[in-house]
Amino acid sequence: MGRGRRNLDDALRRRIVDVAYALDEAWASELAIADVVMVAAPLSQYPALLSMIAPAIGSHTIVTDAGSTKQDVIATARAALHDAISRFVPGHPIAGSEQSGALAADGTLFAGRNVVLTPVGETAADACALVTQLWQTCGARVTTMSPAAHDRVLAAVSHLPHVLAFALVAELASRQDSADLFSYAGTGFRDFTRIAASSPSMWRDVVLANRAALQDELAHYRAALDSAARMLAEGDGAGMAALFERAAIARRRLDSAGPTSGDAT
Amino acid sequence: MGRGRRNLDDALRRRIVDVAYALDEAWASELAIADVVMVAAPLSQYPALLSMIAPAIGSHTIVTDAGSTKQDVIATARAALHDAISRFVPGHPIAGSEQSGALAADGTLFAGRNVVLTPVGETAADACALVTQLWQTCGARVTTMSPAAHDRVLAAVSHLPHVLAFALVAELASRQDSADLFSYAGTGFRDFTRIAASSPSMWRDVVLANRAALQDELAHYRAALDSAARMLAEGDGAGMAALFERAAIARRRLDSAGPTSGDAT
Repeated sequence: MGRGRRNLDDALRRRIVDVAYALDEAWASELAIADVVMVAAPLSQYPALLSMIAPAIGSHTIVTDAGSTKQDVIATARAALHDAISRFVPGHPIAGSEQSGALAADGTLFAGRNVVLTPVGETAADACALVTQLWQTCGARVTTMSPAAHDRVLAAVSHLPHVLAFALVAELASRQDSADLFSYAGTGFRDFTRIAASSPSMWRDVVLANRAALQDELAHYRAALDSAARMLAEGDGAGMAALFERAAIARRRLDSAGPTSGDAT
Repeated sequence: MGRGRRNLDDALRRRIVDVAYALDEAWASELAIADVVMVAAPLSQYPALLSMIAPAIGSHTIVTDAGSTKQDVIATARAALHDAISRFVPGHPIAGSEQSGALAADGTLFAGRNVVLTPVGETAADACALVTQLWQTCGARVTTMSPAAHDRVLAAVSHLPHVLAFALVAELASRQDSADLFSYAGTGFRDFTRIAASSPSMWRDVVLANRAALQDELAHYRAALDSAARMLAEGDGAGMAALFERAAIARRRLDSAGPTSGDAT
């Protein structure tokens, strides 16, 4: 099931799916016999989607998702699924890129990447086990975390960086000489701002859904920038060098640890 | 000529250079017959280096450099080279990576990349032409700019992003759960923070040398973040979406323009 006919046709043509339904087609009988339903949609679509799905799923159907935040998704799922919440397994594959759609599909996308499941009290153990197995079949490393811990961690290593990159590119783009500025941007700038090419509507949903944790992270970061600005104003070379050194050591360690996870979307 | 014997030996072994001298060796006679001297060193080494070079160069020798800032370099060169300032061509190849040293050398590094020359009033036209030709031979696209314009542009698209990335990684690394945080970092985070692995001492020199322009850029950016934080506090989804959209459009345009320049260091 998908919103865009063109994307569904791409998926069929590339044999990524066997059958495809637009949202206004007769997909209900398929859901009644489905073993697993994976919800992979912008967060703002969840309430409507889960309400559509809830009356159609079979009594054994497990529902899971790929949303970037978990506390709000769980609240939405609870409201829509009622008793079937025990067969809902909240999940987040930390993989992807700034691209989207069936044409960006990649069979090896999840190999070696982290998938976080955030089961709640009601979640049935066998539902969680099946979804774990499903992701492991794709080569992913599955871990579990509390929904709140997940949202905190992702705010720090994904949601904040996206906001920082969007803010920088938008600020530079607003200038009269932006074309000139961008023409002198090197690979460092390109790497730093790559995530600013990500889907604006998807990211609006993410930052609103994880607003509280993101606000905390943004506050931490602004304090860190204030401190850097102070060092710069004071010409504090030793302080700057120490700051850069702490960062460089941590960042190089991350590279030597190897890529264990994909784009944190 | 280089500071580190090990790096010089690496360069000799890889046949990147024909002869190599440590700073305390007898290189003066080589400089007397040199056509071109390229100064490629951390900015804080410039005063000492240019003072050593000045009395040794021949009357026809052209001196140029690869420093990331230009106004301070020109002031240093003027003080050290006196009349020979007419044979100094300030330059900045916008290419490189977070790596350094002879083992990171790459013969195609400058192909299609921007090299900015910032000649001053005294700069001899033939000296500028020779250095232009030298870079074009490496495949670079050579442009000229005023030293002040160069420092402003690079503060925006290189120096600021480096400070932002260093600040983020240092902030996250300072936390008790930093190992956990980094273990969930995806490729988006890796791209965004790659420049934070760059040489801390080199970057201390750059930010101090270009302090005034960088402070301006940092002020612009902090105002942009303030505005994003306000939208987040107000739950302003439309404002967020519009901000992200402006950034995504500009960033995608940058990709479709293709890589014309390297890491802006």
